[in-house]
Parts: sequence; structure tokens; C-alpha cells
Amino acid sequence: MKILVTGFDPFAGEPLNPSWEVARRLPGTIAGADVVAIQLPTSFRRSASALRSAVVAHEPDAVVSLGQAGGRSAVTPERVAINVDDGRIPDNDGVLPIDEPIAPDGPSAYFSTLPVKAMVAAMTEAGVPAGVSNSAGTFVCNHVFYAARHLVEREFPGTTAGFVHLPYLPSQALGRPGTPSLSLDAMVTGLEAGLAAIVAYHGHDDARLVGGAAH
Amino acid sequence: MKILVTGFDPFAGEPLNPSWEVARRLPGTIAGADVVAIQLPTSFRRSASALRSAVVAHEPDAVVSLGQAGGRSAVTPERVAINVDDGRIPDNDGVLPIDEPIAPDGPSAYFSTLPVKAMVAAMTEAGVPAGVSNSAGTFVCNHVFYAARHLVEREFPGTTAGFVHLPYLPSQALGRPGTPSLSLDAMVTGLEAGLAAIVAYHGHDDARLVGGAAH
Amino acid sequence: MKILVTGFDPFAGEPLNPSWEVARRLPGTIAGADVVAIQLPTSFRRSASALRSAVVAHEPDAVVSLGQAGGRSAVTPERVAINVDDGRIPDNDGVLPIDEPIAPDGPSAYFSTLPVKAMVAAMTEAGVPAGVSNSAGTFVCNHVFYAARHLVEREFPGTTAGFVHLPYLPSQALGRPGTPSLSLDAMVTGLEAGLAAIVAYHGHDDARLVGGAAH
Amino acid sequence: MKILVTGFDPFAGEPLNPSWEVARRLPGTIAGADVVAIQLPTSFRRSASALRSAVVAHEPDAVVSLGQAGGRSAVTPERVAINVDDGRIPDNDGVLPIDEPIAPDGPSAYFSTLPVKAMVAAMTEAGVPAGVSNSAGTFVCNHVFYAARHLVEREFPGTTAGFVHLPYLPSQALGRPGTPSLSLDAMVTGLEAGLAAIVAYHGHDDARLVGGAAH
Repeated sequence: MKILVTGFDPFAGEPLNPSWEVARRLPGTIAGADVVAIQLPTSFRRSASALRSAVVAHEPDAVVSLGQAGGRSAVTPERVAINVDDGRIPDNDGVLPIDEPIAPDGPSAYFSTLPVKAMVAAMTEAGVPAGVSNSAGTFVCNHVFYAARHLVEREFPGTTAGFVHLPYLPSQALGRPGTPSLSLDAMVTGLEAGLAAIVAYHGHDDARLVGGAAH
Repeated sequence: MKILVTGFDPFAGEPLNPSWEVARRLPGTIAGADVVAIQLPTSFRRSASALRSAVVAHEPDAVVSLGQAGGRSAVTPERVAINVDDGRIPDNDGVLPIDEPIAPDGPSAYFSTLPVKAMVAAMTEAGVPAGVSNSAGTFVCNHVFYAARHLVEREFPGTTAGFVHLPYLPSQALGRPGTPSLSLDAMVTGLEAGLAAIVAYHGHDDARLVGGAAH
Repeated sequence: MKILVTGFDPFAGEPLNPSWEVARRLPGTIAGADVVAIQLPTSFRRSASALRSAVVAHEPDAVVSLGQAGGRSAVTPERVAINVDDGRIPDNDGVLPIDEPIAPDGPSAYFSTLPVKAMVAAMTEAGVPAGVSNSAGTFVCNHVFYAARHLVEREFPGTTAGFVHLPYLPSQALGRPGTPSLSLDAMVTGLEAGLAAIVAYHGHDDARLVGGAAH
Repeated sequence: MKILVTGFDPFAGEPLNPSWEVARRLPGTIAGADVVAIQLPTSFRRSASALRSAVVAHEPDAVVSLGQAGGRSAVTPERVAINVDDGRIPDNDGVLPIDEPIAPDGPSAYFSTLPVKAMVAAMTEAGVPAGVSNSAGTFVCNHVFYAARHLVEREFPGTTAGFVHLPYLPSQALGRPGTPSLSLDAMVTGLEAGLAAIVAYHGHDDARLVGGAAH
């Protein structure tokens, strides 16, 4: 089994992006599966084609994209990607789309085909704060998540795909009073546990665990 | 033009639900449109049929469902409803579904057909904190939002439908240190402005305004 | 009985200050006591002398200073003023002191001589979110609180004095996603209840109520 | 030079207390100073005498007490201890004092004699989120901080004393959605940097750095 993990380059003036810092530190093998890490640009126009090239090159069984969610305090597998690009700030190309569909012919949303409940349970068991998130936003993170699911749905039907958001690293929380962060070690540990759960549940339904949200 | 507004009965031990307190205080006419308010039960099993009965009885041009989002600080029109029931606590019937589709034959999600950006702009202009939300959760609020869109999509194609989440009332924030709230007057004022925007934009595209979310 | 209420002018680019908006809307008589409202400048150098002039002119039985605490969600009577000026931003005169004593010969701190627990209970009873705060910060609010207590301790021994911090008004929370606010009506109602408690407890010990903080 | 570091035993049902986990993992020597760690009970009645015994036994040049501040996201040296015990929950002996003085003959407050601004700067430089806090609460943490300053002020005039609050460990944030935490490694790193600053500034004034709070 092979898992492709993607991380983003820094954006919004940050010196680094925890998603890439975590992706590039994952071991080459987790629970018997090969793990390959690549970096994607924080770009509405370029990220999906970069992802497609990597999927074509590596033919993974699962695609796990990581992204930065500054302000969150836990590692959060995302439940759903929605078919809209709607920026609040420009991406790294200066592009700021407003309410544009990602795929005009695509469905309104794709659910993650990763076992998000089992992943949260495994991360928690490993001592890392984790929870299911019900929104990946409307910026490049959601864009890549939707694009990955759209790609595998049409061209690589045996491949599962999903997204995991990460808190700031402690170095990013400096000078931002009240802003949570999580250490790089904790995030790597969490992802290792989450990827092991992906391997364990491959071909099976997600665990039936309570994990919804009132709103 | 006629607008059907729905609010929920209290749940989770609360003595009241701001969504119903606001709904029943709205004036009977807003911007020339008739406004009818009904209460729905906080019930996965009973809420959609109660909504359907009201739509059949009133034949509204727009359906605006309101719900409580304890912990939020602003009035938040929701962008999207997703096809899943996933409770964290039981509903008022003691039902706690886990990862069940709302409509097995329905799409993965429905976008609101209310002008959410224009509504936020109008609420803000009226002095009420407001913002677009990208997740209505996975509890009865999302269930009713999805059910309303599913209903009108198939049976009442000319009717728009959407959802607005409301903060706690000040009385609910008592004894919860650090929890935001908004006064009943402010919420009613916000909804009046939002409903006026629905009337103004009926038959038109939503305003093109920045209002996305990074995550 | 006479109560002097003070509010501040706006600072940090805000168009208004909730402390003055509330102070100037209080009724002239509360629970039989005369209420006089004055505005103080948000200035380390000028606020204490302006306060002193008002105390000399009005000879109040109690001094209640109000200030803005953006980000808080409740009306918060302050427990203690500390003998230090330590700015994070400049005041309205461009002054930014660092770790300077307010009164080189004064005590390290003054406790409020207002009945803060009874005030919180009365505000809560009136339906307004309230709680005791254990820090008034180190900016002009704490400065005025300390100066008021220092003044009455030495020159007006029969006069009680204290401070109450207020959340943003809803209009200030616009464009600040996630920031709590409270309506002007709710704040005025809370202050009326708090001032009535001051009258009721004048000459008596504060109510013995649980209201401490772990940290 | 010798530094006495204290941590607390767990309270409020927690399985551990980050303050003791950090204290017992500090190296025996930091910046040339000997470091001795002891555990104090989370008890209003027993903590001060346990602290006094340790100070008599070790005759330290500085006393640095650590405590848990669940919900904070940064390591926070405290500026001031106030002369009041006011619980919200009972301590580990079941004691819940309400508005009682710690030392009836003591001053209203003691400022920390540790270089809190220099400590925050050193922690930040080491990559650990940190900030000056202006309230240590009114529970056993504030009690020990006040008692330590009161003790050295009267019996060990050459000894400095202060307090540092710590966030939850990641294991404590599990199951508390939205609650920040910091890894044990990050907290130990932060404390090492803070203790090195104490050594560097011993006998000198604190650094003149901006670090106040508006409220």
C-alpha cells in the first residue's frame, strides 16, 4: 500500500507552513505502507495540477492532504469538501476568487473517503488532541481537498482521498497572545497514528464513533 | 412575496431557544413581504415532516430556518447543508444518529439559495455582528437545512431556502464565563435586515462580496 | 447618597467607547441615589486630575469608573488595582509608559471597596452576563482605578471606589469575527442593577458568594 | 546560585499537573545555577508551610513556583500576587475559602521579584509562546505566590520569588475541543530559558520591554 501525503508552501507572510513541516518529517513507511511526501503551492490555479501529476507519478492507494488552520488547537481530519472557491485573502499568486465553482460539472460536495472517525480515535489514543472538522473553509485547502476527491472519483476509483488541518506551530504563535499551537513532534505523532488508521481501515467502513457537531 | 421563517424548540436542557424567540418576534411584513413564523421540533425524525407541512400550507417564496449556535458571537447565514446526520448529543426524542445519510438518494450537499453575502452585508449595515458560516454542523440544524433544500428542489422549484444560526441570548450566557451572547433586539434587527435582503435579491444573483474563510 | 460614574473617551481608533455610552445613558437616580456621569480622557497624565476635580466638585459617596474591555463577553466588576503603568499601545496623548509606579509612595495594590460579588449577583439576576475580574490590566483603566482608590483613601475616607469593565458594543464587533459584544441596553441594565447593589450594600460587607478564579 | 522550583500535585480530577511534570524534568544545573524541584500540595492550608520548609532547607537565591492554567495557550510569568483566597472549586482538602485574606497583616499585593519581561523575551527567543500575565487568580496558585513573596520579604530578604503559569499538556486537552495545549518538551524548553534569564538578571532590574495589557 502507498500513501501520498501533501503539504503546502507558506502563505499570508508566514515563514513556514506546518503542513509541509509535518509532511516532510513523516517516516518512509507507516504500518507497512510506503509514504511519499510532496509540496503543493498555495495557489488556486496551480495546486490541483501539481497534485494530479503526483498522483499519476506515484499511483497511491490513499491521498492525504495537509493544511494549516491557524487558531485551531487540535489536529482535525476534514469531513467534507465543497464545490466553491471563495477567498478572504489572495493566494500566493495574488488570486482572490469570489464564489466560483471549483468544477462547474462537479457535485456540490465530496465527503472524505478516509476513515475520519478512526483517525481521530487513533490520534487521541496517541495523546494528540484531535477532532473531526465539518468545514475545510473556502480557500486553497478546500480547493485541493475537492480537487483530489474529484480526480480520484473520475480517474483513480480505487484511491481514497481526504484532508487534515493542523494548528500553528509554537513558533507561529509567538506574538499572538491567546493563540493555540501544537509542537511539531505532537503533530508528526498524530499523523503517524492517523496514517496507521488509514492502513488498518483500507477497504473497510469507518469506525462508528460519536463525533458530530451541534453547529 | 411570502417568507416562511422557522425556529426550534429548546434542547440540551436550555429553557428557551433563541431561534424561536427571534422567529416569533419578527413583524408580519418586511420590505413588503409577508412573514410567517412556525416552530419546529429539535428532532431528527419529526422536523422535516413538520417543515414540509408548513411549506405545503403556506407555499412560501423563501424558507429561512433559524437555529441556535451556542458559543458563536455573530448572526451567521449558512452557506451549505451536507447529507449526513451525526449527533454529539441526543435530540429531543433521545435519538443520536451516527454518520447516516439524510437522503440516501440525495446529493452530498446543497448550497443555500438565499443571498448569504447580501444578507451579511445588510445585517452588518444594520449594526449587527454577522458573517457567512461554512458549516451548519451535523445535528438537527443541518438536517432541517438539508431537508428544506431537498424539498424545494424536488417539489417547489421556485422557492429559495437557507439557514441562519444565532448566538445565545444573554440569559443563556449567564454562568458560562467567556461565552458570547447577543441581545434579542439585536438578533431581531439583524433578521429584519437579512429578510429585507432576501426580498431585494429575489430572482437575482447574490452580491459579489469578499466573505470566504481560510479554514 | 450620590454616585459618580466615569466613562472614557474613545481610544485605539474606535469611533466610540462603550464606557461613556453607558455612563451617559444611566438615569439620574438609581435606588434613591443621585447619579452623576462624567467623561475622562484616555490619558495616563490627565485622567487622574480630571477624576480628582469631579470628586472635589461632587463629593460622591461612591465612585464607579467604567472602561472598555474589548474581547470580554460579560460586564466585569474589577477586584483589584495594581500600582503600575505598563502600556502595550500609546494612550491618547501618545504616552506609552513601561513598568512605572502610579504612586511611588502608594501601596502595591488597592482592592475595590465596591461590593463586587453583590454587584455580579445583581447584574446576573437582571439577566446580564457578569463576573468578577481579577485584573484591570496595566493601561489607563487600571491607572484610573488605582488613582481613584488612592485619592479617596487619603482625602475622602468615607467614599467607596471601584471599576467595571464592559465588552464591545455590537457595532464595534462588526468585522471582527468571533469577537463577543453586548448591546447598549443590556449594559445599561447591568449597570443599573450594579449601582442599586452599591446603594443596598453601602456601609455593609460584600455578599459572601463563590466567585473566585483558578487563574 | 541556587533556584528552588515548585510544582503542584494534580487537582480537579486531572491525572497529572503540568507544573510538576515540568519541574521534575528540569536539569539539575541551568546557566551555572543549581536547580532543585519539589512538589507542593494543592491545598490552601498546607502549601505555604511545605514551601517554607523547602526554603529553609535549601536556602535558594530564587524561588520559582509553577502552576497549571488550563485554557491558556502560552507560558505566562505572573506579575503580581494579591492578598486574597477566593476559591471557585474546593482544593485537594475540600477547602473552599471565600474572600479571606492570606496574611491579615500583609500588604494588599506583592509584585514578582523575578524579571518577568526578560523571562518572556527569553522564552520567546527559544521558540516557546510566552507572555506576562497580570492575574494569578485567587486559588492555591495565587496563594503560594503570595506566601512565597511574603516569606522571603520577611525572612530571606536576598531571595527573589515569583510564579509561572503553564497551559495544559496535550493529553489534558484530549476531549476538550478548542482547548489549547503545549507539549512537555516546549514547556521544559521555555522554563530552561526563563531560569537562565533569572540567573542573568539576578541583582539587576528587569528588561525594559513592552508587555502590558489593556485589560
